[in-house]
Amino acid sequence: MEDEFAFIDSITPKKTYQSRLRVGIGDDAAVYVSNVHYEEVVCVDTMVEGIHFRKDTLNARQIGQKALGINVSDLAAMGARPQFYLVAIAIPTTWSADEVREIYKGMKMLADPLEMDLIGGDTVSSPSCLMITVTAIGVVEAGSALKRSMAQPGDVVFLTGPVGGSAAGFSLLNEQTRHGVFTAEEQHYILCHQEVAPQVALGRICASSGGRIALNDVSDGLASEAHEIAVASGVQLVLDREEIVALSPQLHGVDEETGLKWGLYGGEDFQLLGTTSKDQLASLQQQASAIGRSFYPVGFVRAGVPAVYIKKEEQEVLLAKKGFNHFRHGDENDETKV
Amino acid sequence: MEDEFAFIDSITPKKTYQSRLRVGIGDDAAVYVSNVHYEEVVCVDTMVEGIHFRKDTLNARQIGQKALGINVSDLAAMGARPQFYLVAIAIPTTWSADEVREIYKGMKMLADPLEMDLIGGDTVSSPSCLMITVTAIGVVEAGSALKRSMAQPGDVVFLTGPVGGSAAGFSLLNEQTRHGVFTAEEQHYILCHQEVAPQVALGRICASSGGRIALNDVSDGLASEAHEIAVASGVQLVLDREEIVALSPQLHGVDEETGLKWGLYGGEDFQLLGTTSKDQLASLQQQASAIGRSFYPVGFVRAGVPAVYIKKEEQEVLLAKKGFNHFRHGDENDETKV
Repeated sequence: MEDEFAFIDSITPKKTYQSRLRVGIGDDAAVYVSNVHYEEVVCVDTMVEGIHFRKDTLNARQIGQKALGINVSDLAAMGARPQFYLVAIAIPTTWSADEVREIYKGMKMLADPLEMDLIGGDTVSSPSCLMITVTAIGVVEAGSALKRSMAQPGDVVFLTGPVGGSAAGFSLLNEQTRHGVFTAEEQHYILCHQEVAPQVALGRICASSGGRIALNDVSDGLASEAHEIAVASGVQLVLDREEIVALSPQLHGVDEETGLKWGLYGGEDFQLLGTTSKDQLASLQQQASAIGRSFYPVGFVRAGVPAVYIKKEEQEVLLAKKGFNHFRHGDENDETKV
Repeated sequence: MEDEFAFIDSITPKKTYQSRLRVGIGDDAAVYVSNVHYEEVVCVDTMVEGIHFRKDTLNARQIGQKALGINVSDLAAMGARPQFYLVAIAIPTTWSADEVREIYKGMKMLADPLEMDLIGGDTVSSPSCLMITVTAIGVVEAGSALKRSMAQPGDVVFLTGPVGGSAAGFSLLNEQTRHGVFTAEEQHYILCHQEVAPQVALGRICASSGGRIALNDVSDGLASEAHEIAVASGVQLVLDREEIVALSPQLHGVDEETGLKWGLYGGEDFQLLGTTSKDQLASLQQQASAIGRSFYPVGFVRAGVPAVYIKKEEQEVLLAKKGFNHFRHGDENDETKV
């Protein structure tokens, strides 16, 4: 790495967006003022080279974009408006300063349209792999954070978009790396894996509605996230197989079962999964349409011992919670969001 | 690692302290309410196995205590009251679940007396070394955060306690590991390295005084931190050699020059370094006495091109900014707090 001051200078924002920021990068800690109409929302997520990405599956900008994006998605799932982020990065000698700068550019590309400010961090050396930990901070209207525990029997289950695309793309990248030759259709799914688009706008529509809505982001796979809502709310979620198939990857030469497996167990889609009343969903739908987006009904909530089912015509199958993790097939215990 | 739910359950707090916490561990993000009389303060720091610690220099509890402590020290240097922390940890197969739980216990031992709540995190696997990134959040009275840029000519420079003890202890640990045989005197300095005691109480005395005070924590060494104040405030700091020697390690068989080098360039002491007017310091001193503590005057501030000098009788020597980093002698660019 080059001179530390030059490096820090090159990643320090030249302007900031958030008027409540009092002290950004350059002191012991960042400082921002409170607003009594809002509550603070904070989360943290880590990406490790060789576990969550490799240099041949994501380029440096995509790594940065994803490291921030997975956190922004968590804020979106609370209905929050993202505002700040902090970046702790451990850099091995196999990464150049220019590559690391690209990671920060990737974060900035996602942060700028959201008006998020980089307000702190820590840059250390690593003996082996690159690791990046992002802390993201946002605000939500007081009392309006969207918790997993709000589902009620009679609710509609909805998704904000397709699922499993990231897993489909990853399976192609795992075979051929990002330097392979792909069809336009394959390239579409590869981008689902490489480029994160957190659903902030739809999360904001949910939170600002003031309605009773359970919400979760699909980072560990649809089945796993549905289970989290079921357990937190003490209800059963019944997913409609046809609806899930329709939202899952349909890749040339890949059978429906594989597409459905990606849809149910593939992680890193960063759509939102929620439940609310039919009336409330109709109202959310109107607002989504106004910005050219949609909520997709994919099932319903009923009373019962917490569980998730998938239903085809009149036949129901109990859905296991377990998903699969990229690079980590066969070991389910090595990643856990607390 | 054992079952992920059992592990998470074992590290999840059974009670929380902060009444403003609305959502802790268990959803996509944590949520806490705002208070207009306070501003939010946030920082993040990473510790990497083989870079910042080894299993033979710190035990698991000490690693946890230090990972949180370095962040609490940053909050203390802003005058903040610590309230929350989030922990991202990457765990290699060389660490057992019990060892990792000890790390969390170490954090809790530091957090409990401060009434800090663990409100989120991420647990992932690591292909090689253990890495731990802590985000700490606190509050400070609105407008009262203590910035490095507040030093003025005529100010007294002060420390909250001895410096260099951690470096002295580390030099012993680096030779003999923590399983060596040490004298009581040596053991004292080893504990300076192993056990972090962030100066929250004295930072709070500074912030709640409402006075003009520049403050920094001595994490990268006294010389480096003094330079940061000098540059941020556009002033010169002149340190009194005798005062610094008196606060530096006096270890049997170690000459004064080595002790002074530890005092000036040894990092991880986690004392606070500040500047303020003589009158203000007298007032702070009174409050410190009331809790059995002291501020130690170690120099003065004057106008001039930003720089730090050390003075013995009438002779001044320009002090280089560079310190030394544990495990990383000869490479100054590999750790950078932004």
